[in-house]
Amino acid sequence: MTITAKASLTPSQTEEIDHVALDEDYVLTASFVEKVVDASDAGDGLKLRSLLEDLHPADVADLMGFLTAEHRTVVVLWLPPDLLAETLPELDDNIREEVLERVPHLTLAEALQELDSDDAAAVVEDLEDDQREKVLAAMPEVDRAAIENSLRYDEDSAGRLMQREVMAAPSFWNVGDTIDHIRKQGEDLPELFFDIYIVDPHNKPVGGLPVSGLLRAARTIALVDIMEPINAIAVDQDQEEVAYIFEKYHLISAPVVDAAGRLVGQITVDDIVNIIQEENREDILRLAGVSDEDRGSSVSEIVRGRVPWLAINLGTAVLGSIVISWFEATIAQIVALVILLPIVSAIGGNAGTQALTVTVRALATRELNSSNAARTFRRELAVGLANGFVLAPLIGMAAGLWFQEWRIGAVIGMAMVLNLLVAATVGVLTPLTLSRLKFDPAVSSAVFVTATTDFFGFLIFLGLASLVLL
Amino acid sequence: MTITAKASLTPSQTEEIDHVALDEDYVLTASFVEKVVDASDAGDGLKLRSLLEDLHPADVADLMGFLTAEHRTVVVLWLPPDLLAETLPELDDNIREEVLERVPHLTLAEALQELDSDDAAAVVEDLEDDQREKVLAAMPEVDRAAIENSLRYDEDSAGRLMQREVMAAPSFWNVGDTIDHIRKQGEDLPELFFDIYIVDPHNKPVGGLPVSGLLRAARTIALVDIMEPINAIAVDQDQEEVAYIFEKYHLISAPVVDAAGRLVGQITVDDIVNIIQEENREDILRLAGVSDEDRGSSVSEIVRGRVPWLAINLGTAVLGSIVISWFEATIAQIVALVILLPIVSAIGGNAGTQALTVTVRALATRELNSSNAARTFRRELAVGLANGFVLAPLIGMAAGLWFQEWRIGAVIGMAMVLNLLVAATVGVLTPLTLSRLKFDPAVSSAVFVTATTDFFGFLIFLGLASLVLL
Repeated sequence: MTITAKASLTPSQTEEIDHVALDEDYVLTASFVEKVVDASDAGDGLKLRSLLEDLHPADVADLMGFLTAEHRTVVVLWLPPDLLAETLPELDDNIREEVLERVPHLTLAEALQELDSDDAAAVVEDLEDDQREKVLAAMPEVDRAAIENSLRYDEDSAGRLMQREVMAAPSFWNVGDTIDHIRKQGEDLPELFFDIYIVDPHNKPVGGLPVSGLLRAARTIALVDIMEPINAIAVDQDQEEVAYIFEKYHLISAPVVDAAGRLVGQITVDDIVNIIQEENREDILRLAGVSDEDRGSSVSEIVRGRVPWLAINLGTAVLGSIVISWFEATIAQIVALVILLPIVSAIGGNAGTQALTVTVRALATRELNSSNAARTFRRELAVGLANGFVLAPLIGMAAGLWFQEWRIGAVIGMAMVLNLLVAATVGVLTPLTLSRLKFDPAVSSAVFVTATTDFFGFLIFLGLASLVLL
Repeated sequence: MTITAKASLTPSQTEEIDHVALDEDYVLTASFVEKVVDASDAGDGLKLRSLLEDLHPADVADLMGFLTAEHRTVVVLWLPPDLLAETLPELDDNIREEVLERVPHLTLAEALQELDSDDAAAVVEDLEDDQREKVLAAMPEVDRAAIENSLRYDEDSAGRLMQREVMAAPSFWNVGDTIDHIRKQGEDLPELFFDIYIVDPHNKPVGGLPVSGLLRAARTIALVDIMEPINAIAVDQDQEEVAYIFEKYHLISAPVVDAAGRLVGQITVDDIVNIIQEENREDILRLAGVSDEDRGSSVSEIVRGRVPWLAINLGTAVLGSIVISWFEATIAQIVALVILLPIVSAIGGNAGTQALTVTVRALATRELNSSNAARTFRRELAVGLANGFVLAPLIGMAAGLWFQEWRIGAVIGMAMVLNLLVAATVGVLTPLTLSRLKFDPAVSSAVFVTATTDFFGFLIFLGLASLVLL
């Protein structure tokens, strides 16, 4: 958890000093970014430092995203070391890797000691093997152990996400005991905590109490009499599950337990917000066939992430081509049919993508499971049919008038209704099937859905046309 | 804010009682949903109540989403009133509206008093005008005033989101004064709070202090000596802005101030998590041309939300048709060209959607603004060119072999490179332009982008073919 004591200057505050870093929406202004660029071009370190030193680490990270790699190098050189430390966990992955390569390992070892164990581990994880060894070797034993322990858990697990520092109280304590303990042991407790976990003699959490509840209760009240049920998180639980639990039950923090149910750490909601954003980002990009990329990605990294999807798309698009080739003779006789193919393709693809997106989203938010899958499918079919009955007359009449041939209108109208049923079917069943097979339903679904609606759309339209018009 | 004292049973706990409501991922099991359906079909109210009474409100809301409207009616009838109250803010919008129509106004008036002012206002907002009047009239003056006050703010503003209850301390207090005040005034304070706001004599917040910090400090220390800077939220700020500030600076709670800078309430992070999910949901659905819909939407509501996008799509797809009609003579001579049209359309549309989605996402997370727009555009053009150089030889050779005519291969290959540049251009410039004109960059972008890549894709391919092959 990184809740830094230093809050950002509010826009109104910054107006009082000579450089306005943030606009009214708390976004870095273009003119501030320009000042940083100018100062680093001029190699004016003192100017750079004066521009940067009052920024919140999150704003420094943001600034780095707006700079080119060369300017980042200069900025890193002039960042005060403690600000650099707090900025590291905030950076985009690609930029963090780039920055880490440039920071001497002793500076890094010192910087990491300023961070909570979970943030420090996240940074160390991004180091090259040899750099990692050097950095860890230069750290005090206790910090190194905490980081190594954190890295022992799977990358996307609760264990990696948690901080080891927690405020635990034995179940026989009362409110007064707990408050006295906090006053005395202040230094060993987490810098910031929201819930106290009440543990039994085996160190298993049996309840929780918000700090404000502790403050409000009389000193003689036993903790067990005012504690509330808790949602304990298993240390090997996937971070997506953890985010779901936090979101569903509106948690601020939750205890993490090992396989034996013993308290080993806690997760706080601010880390969860990041994970929710990360998962949403993944879903939206995967639906479009974009692999992980960010502001720091190079052109070749981006191309390597996107070309495979385009190549798959090329392969599936050939299916549509093949269908058309089957009807070459029909088309040679009635070239007008070709003019309608983009419409068949666009409407089928779009309706399929609508059904697909709704289904992928419902799966991601767990609003869709086996108890309502059949109902969802029937509803999408009904929607497809209704869409067809609205759109088919429109396009049918338009096509009939364009080609002065009502039979062409009838064919495209009928084909559209049938293809919208195909779109609803593949739009729902593709992600449902992928999800049941334990694949990510967002990945590659869109390519498959549009290929299928093209294939059947052309087949139905050209098939009907051959039957009716020839 | 709804942080209910009652946490959900953990899966392992529920296994000990006779019905297992949640699976290991905290999702309702299909067998539990079935039991509820059976009990409500049988009209067995006591059974229903025993199934429901131990559920967390969030799980009841989830259950409602899995049921049909008829089953929901029966379930609402048998929900204990306090559980019904806490469930209302958790429901999907459509389901909440449906449930509210069925709850007698006196029951509702009583239920709403159990909720925080922000949650109560959110429920009242969904009532029909005449029901709203009746419900408000049946509530005690103080609760009614709180709700009416909340509803006076814009729907998506900080004012609507905030709770009025805050823990404020005058700036001349020390730690001891503050703790004593909390112990004495417990009842008038928020049920749960995370930060204490330090206010000046004009009730303007000048700093904040986490409760755990208060607990740890010596009683004689002045609040102003340990307080931290705060990010004050303006009462009329848009909820999306508020979410951005919380996310960026890892806030747990923040004070809300009126136009004069006076403290009027606070916003807590659990409400922000909901907003982040809501905004993400909107973005992903809008990109696919789906308006707001959820599990409770009827087929006709869904169709009304989706048909307009399909109709727009129909209109834009006609552009592609028109281009093809310009080349009818070419096609009549070389029918083989038609077979390649789906490939031109698919690759252009897909590459455009990739660039579009990345741009929309970067705008939503504010990673893209005027200071890096030009660089982003150049990068996408470079990616488009690189994609073209990878894919064009592939498809060019395949087409050349298929039609035994290398010139067709050359034409499609060249057309593909050019169309990928078109795709990059419209994929980036469409959302950037919409955003600069203060429109939502996600809405309708996809339809426009694919229509443009179809238009230029067909034009370039068929144009080159006419020049080279005829």
